[in-house]
Amino acid sequence: MTDLVKETLSKYDMGLVFVYTGNGKGKTTAAMGQALRAIGHGLKVLMIQFMKGKKYGEVIAAEKYLPDLTIYQCGLDSFVMRKNPAPVDVDLAQQGLNMARKAVSSGEYHMVILDEINVAMDFGLISTDDVVDMIKSKAPAVDLILTGRYAPPEIVALADTVSEVHEMKHHYSKGIKERAGIEF
Amino acid sequence: MTDLVKETLSKYDMGLVFVYTGNGKGKTTAAMGQALRAIGHGLKVLMIQFMKGKKYGEVIAAEKYLPDLTIYQCGLDSFVMRKNPAPVDVDLAQQGLNMARKAVSSGEYHMVILDEINVAMDFGLISTDDVVDMIKSKAPAVDLILTGRYAPPEIVALADTVSEVHEMKHHYSKGIKERAGIEF
Repeated sequence: MTDLVKETLSKYDMGLVFVYTGNGKGKTTAAMGQALRAIGHGLKVLMIQFMKGKKYGEVIAAEKYLPDLTIYQCGLDSFVMRKNPAPVDVDLAQQGLNMARKAVSSGEYHMVILDEINVAMDFGLISTDDVVDMIKSKAPAVDLILTGRYAPPEIVALADTVSEVHEMKHHYSKGIKERAGIEF
Repeated sequence: MTDLVKETLSKYDMGLVFVYTGNGKGKTTAAMGQALRAIGHGLKVLMIQFMKGKKYGEVIAAEKYLPDLTIYQCGLDSFVMRKNPAPVDVDLAQQGLNMARKAVSSGEYHMVILDEINVAMDFGLISTDDVVDMIKSKAPAVDLILTGRYAPPEIVALADTVSEVHEMKHHYSKGIKERAGIEF
């Protein structure tokens, strides 16, 4: 941990709750960038990815280069039925939530990122009430970041900082397909 | 470079232009996260930070862990006068723009991030016309990302994807001060 972080953590012994939501590109990557910023100061970061099973570039990079960033994927690389998900999708998301509960209360990580957890709630894989309880059980010093479209109002109400990423333009509308290094 | 990237680059020999603008938190970190995603696939990334001189966490992390991410800072860690900047601030921003011009046309990097360049235009450090010319001189395969509030309409028009990060809530409004690992 850098002296700067020791100094600031001793001054402000309170972690914050961040939400990145909205329909635009940049929510997961904003959280990843925050992880990188925190790592630079010597902090330990855990990211749990809900509803994702594909080996994204950030997962490869973290495994290869970043010992202080741990990423777990709690999903399959396949389509989830909204409001009528398969039992395996529910099980995996519940595992992710259990892992999140332990991580935010244990203090093992300075920052915990729950990627796409808002979508997992919207799709009915986990309940908003359970996520609210998890947030309330957070150890004071832990920074917690929740990403994904459709952040429920209960989560927005609990958060300290909420950024809504709005799509003004997207290259998909030009017929450009998803690409390694850009979308995953 | 992963086989996946080789395959996709050979299919789509066109880089994209991304803009992250708006008043919310997450623009620079969204670009950083895109860098990390690209690096995971073996791509080389350059970030030029305008109007920044402070050793941000991402700069420390890149130097320590990420050989494929180079960050240059073209600014001082001090206040810039909007529309009436000091000559040194103009010089540094112009140097950043020159560096950007070379980087996007040379093909040395697969992705070039021009952090806070929108603000540098808004403050009058560099002209929008020069930035437009730089974007138009981009080698086809290079992905280019521009961040910062106040993206001018000329830049938005040229971009393939534009995300506007809107501040719904911010912890500053609770009187919480900036912190290492969060704001820098």
